[in-house]
Amino acid sequence: MTTQLHTNGLDLNQIQELVGVLQADPTKAQTVWRSRIHWKQGFQNEFQSRHAPITVDEPQALSGSDTGPNPAELLLGAMGTCLSIGYALNATARGITLEAMDLELEGDIDLMVFAGLREEGNPGYSGVRITAKIKSDATPEQLQSLHEHVLRTSPICSTVARPVAVEARVEPLA
Amino acid sequence: MTTQLHTNGLDLNQIQELVGVLQADPTKAQTVWRSRIHWKQGFQNEFQSRHAPITVDEPQALSGSDTGPNPAELLLGAMGTCLSIGYALNATARGITLEAMDLELEGDIDLMVFAGLREEGNPGYSGVRITAKIKSDATPEQLQSLHEHVLRTSPICSTVARPVAVEARVEPLA
Repeated sequence: MTTQLHTNGLDLNQIQELVGVLQADPTKAQTVWRSRIHWKQGFQNEFQSRHAPITVDEPQALSGSDTGPNPAELLLGAMGTCLSIGYALNATARGITLEAMDLELEGDIDLMVFAGLREEGNPGYSGVRITAKIKSDATPEQLQSLHEHVLRTSPICSTVARPVAVEARVEPLA
Repeated sequence: MTTQLHTNGLDLNQIQELVGVLQADPTKAQTVWRSRIHWKQGFQNEFQSRHAPITVDEPQALSGSDTGPNPAELLLGAMGTCLSIGYALNATARGITLEAMDLELEGDIDLMVFAGLREEGNPGYSGVRITAKIKSDATPEQLQSLHEHVLRTSPICSTVARPVAVEARVEPLA
């Protein structure tokens, strides 16, 4: 296997080829993603997709054993890495060289509904705030334009910002 | 530190104490969660909350270096572990003993918007399907009731199911 790393560690030719494939046949852009969760004990779980399992737990203050990030942190991680990947992709496509990129995310959850203390209300994040710090050769205007495009087209930030159909069912195992 | 593990590996007394604290002072239920993302190169990032960094990347088919799950998988992991934690919490509160619990999640993303090939449309998940398989001493009716409560009160599944305010800004670094 030969890997050619170009601007920002990405092979723009390979990306343009991929975009060409999707353009020629949009059914190839229909992707399905999967994950399995295996409960260990208490609030400790292993989450696994195509790679090694990742331990997810709750902090001790929430009665967990604190052996990994919790689901609320994992969600922020998904949003932030989605933006970072979007910046890398679109910076490369626009000829912008990234030198460094760090993102900080925070969000608020009122635990009253989860704790069973309130019937009504939003159990989830009421809002998420994100700051991206990017060192690059882009002008502030180019960076702002990149940012607006990336935020608008981010699969995971869009999933959080929009209502999404979640279907869940349980099967008893004998 | 003494840790007493009761049903399902959880200390119900500790949980009831915590719920009592939130009930007495609901401002203590207002939680803020944080995450930092550090871009490495290409589509490879490290996501970190309070624990060791977790590598997030894209598969080679999407021009990544495939060194970890991608953000779409991480989101499913967050949803699934949130449900698993909800089942563990509420099963314990209801006196249900869990023997085993595994969840499978899948969801669909149309990459046309992310790839810059379509201006309009949803860049994110159009839907997520979840199957929880639970081995316990609950009757099918008790399990279904547990499931409905957990799904309705899940912070992360609610975050995905509802529209959430996402504010993001970029700061150029010199």
